[in-house]
Amino acid sequence: MSDMTETTPGWLSSDELELARARMPILYVEAVPVRVDDSGEVTHIGLLLRIGPDGTVSRTLVSGRVLHHERVRDALLRHLEKDLGPVALPQVPASLQPFTVAEYFPTLGVTPFHDPRQHAVSLAYIVPVTGDCRPQQNALDLVWVSPEEASSPLVLDEMPGGHGVLLKQALAHVGCLS
Amino acid sequence: MSDMTETTPGWLSSDELELARARMPILYVEAVPVRVDDSGEVTHIGLLLRIGPDGTVSRTLVSGRVLHHERVRDALLRHLEKDLGPVALPQVPASLQPFTVAEYFPTLGVTPFHDPRQHAVSLAYIVPVTGDCRPQQNALDLVWVSPEEASSPLVLDEMPGGHGVLLKQALAHVGCLS
Amino acid sequence: MSDMTETTPGWLSSDELELARARMPILYVEAVPVRVDDSGEVTHIGLLLRIGPDGTVSRTLVSGRVLHHERVRDALLRHLEKDLGPVALPQVPASLQPFTVAEYFPTLGVTPFHDPRQHAVSLAYIVPVTGDCRPQQNALDLVWVSPEEASSPLVLDEMPGGHGVLLKQALAHVGCLS
Amino acid sequence: MSDMTETTPGWLSSDELELARARMPILYVEAVPVRVDDSGEVTHIGLLLRIGPDGTVSRTLVSGRVLHHERVRDALLRHLEKDLGPVALPQVPASLQPFTVAEYFPTLGVTPFHDPRQHAVSLAYIVPVTGDCRPQQNALDLVWVSPEEASSPLVLDEMPGGHGVLLKQALAHVGCLS
Repeated sequence: MSDMTETTPGWLSSDELELARARMPILYVEAVPVRVDDSGEVTHIGLLLRIGPDGTVSRTLVSGRVLHHERVRDALLRHLEKDLGPVALPQVPASLQPFTVAEYFPTLGVTPFHDPRQHAVSLAYIVPVTGDCRPQQNALDLVWVSPEEASSPLVLDEMPGGHGVLLKQALAHVGCLS
Repeated sequence: MSDMTETTPGWLSSDELELARARMPILYVEAVPVRVDDSGEVTHIGLLLRIGPDGTVSRTLVSGRVLHHERVRDALLRHLEKDLGPVALPQVPASLQPFTVAEYFPTLGVTPFHDPRQHAVSLAYIVPVTGDCRPQQNALDLVWVSPEEASSPLVLDEMPGGHGVLLKQALAHVGCLS
Repeated sequence: MSDMTETTPGWLSSDELELARARMPILYVEAVPVRVDDSGEVTHIGLLLRIGPDGTVSRTLVSGRVLHHERVRDALLRHLEKDLGPVALPQVPASLQPFTVAEYFPTLGVTPFHDPRQHAVSLAYIVPVTGDCRPQQNALDLVWVSPEEASSPLVLDEMPGGHGVLLKQALAHVGCLS
Repeated sequence: MSDMTETTPGWLSSDELELARARMPILYVEAVPVRVDDSGEVTHIGLLLRIGPDGTVSRTLVSGRVLHHERVRDALLRHLEKDLGPVALPQVPASLQPFTVAEYFPTLGVTPFHDPRQHAVSLAYIVPVTGDCRPQQNALDLVWVSPEEASSPLVLDEMPGGHGVLLKQALAHVGCLS
């Protein structure tokens, strides 16, 4: 989660957000965008390529804060639209039961997840998308990879902050972890 | 589950099916068809109206056996197509994790579910459908009701064999049980 | 969620908590304490009786904030201990996948859940307890009711803020909603 | 699933079981036995060492058929007792929602799971055990390994029929897949 400059106007000023981040767990949602066939089986996983503040390129997932007075499903939809563009046609799940809860700590080693900026707790969902994806904003590009490619250490090790672990959990949940 | 004459050609003759039903739990899938809005929230639940062998009309869900050498997701798709028609465009879930497992016993009272013909174990899924639903075969009609209507005792009590309980579990899972 | 005066020392002063509550969703955990038999079937549900600020008695569930740098499972354990006493021996789940996510809004009607103080998002778990429960602090008493009693409108309607809905969701998840 | 000679008296003769196996999916339950700490976090995974019909030793999980008129939770308890002994004190889950459904096909490659004898569909659960485990019957031995050891290719590749994949899915579900 080291890569998300929240550019959407929110309810907190930058200073206030800094303060809150030092005091409370911050609620996030994360989505693993997938392409599925008619029987619902995952055929491709969407990975975002981003440039971090230090110029390095990393692969990541759709991710962002839940704002004050925003429903989890509206936050999911907003971040999917922000990262995949307005015509991605994401199928936000009917149930809010996430496939996992990822806990990002500013301290390394508490969990497999790490965010130097904050303690973030993230509800993670698999989201099939059927439309055209056109990455916006910070995201440079979107690549669709097969479940086999997504399972490879080459891909997973390129994902910072534990996103590789989250992706493995997603692949396991949809029965595609080889 | 008292209403499903399996008319699709299967791997068992009627006699063999009768024999198996007396000896083993039979694997079923069940689907609660729903309409959702852009944020994934359930707006309507699809209920099938069927005429039972004794002429009574009952409300029911999409339901049927998993055949030999058939994947669970293919069985789901086949029964959705059989009951909702070929252009319903069901979104079979990416994950096989069901929202519940319903156990139908031939003996009353072991669980809330009952099937006089057999011991059936059913994997239950919520399935958003976006296309046109045209009930086929045994199904007389399909009605779309709001979550509030679906939660009413009037609807739930009309559903035989414990399907009312299963529908309540589905509504609870999608956060729509009032 | 109108009943939780957080008396455990936390990371926020009262003023800061007030400020944060006006600006961000606050992360909670909630637990439905249950007694189970050897086969894991729920035999009893534990309900807390509390006196609210206005003197009214209400039934509620175990519930509380997740603190900064606290894991979800440690928050669960802390609140279970706070509400059920030190020898309740709760079985905190091995998986963090909650059975549901409950969203409490300060505005009525956005979801079935309501908390006039704040926007809280709560991860909800079923937690079997095997030890002796001795309610502490604000909780007046703990009563164990059967799934049938817990399902009755008499019980559910006494639970403020949507906790009756959450209890129904829990009962549905464990197959005990009649 | 190549290792389960069903020695518990069942409802089917060997011949009948052979016949049924050729005609219908057979319902199984599988359990991943774990040790957890007070906060529910998995500290160890229990693996059974078995000798197969050809004398090779393999690691496997608790697994077996659901019998006619047997509840899923009773089948789980029976197989846990059969494989771990009578004083293992397994905590069968309160909810029947499995973490995954594993589909074993007699044909290789349909899914990651394979059983040359039959088409089996298995409901898979994580089961904490707190007592003394004394493997019975076919099982030679039980070893407790850390999540890190369980995640290693050395362990996973020794598990036949896709059990290595199932174990990875279990580790992912409890947040322990490194």
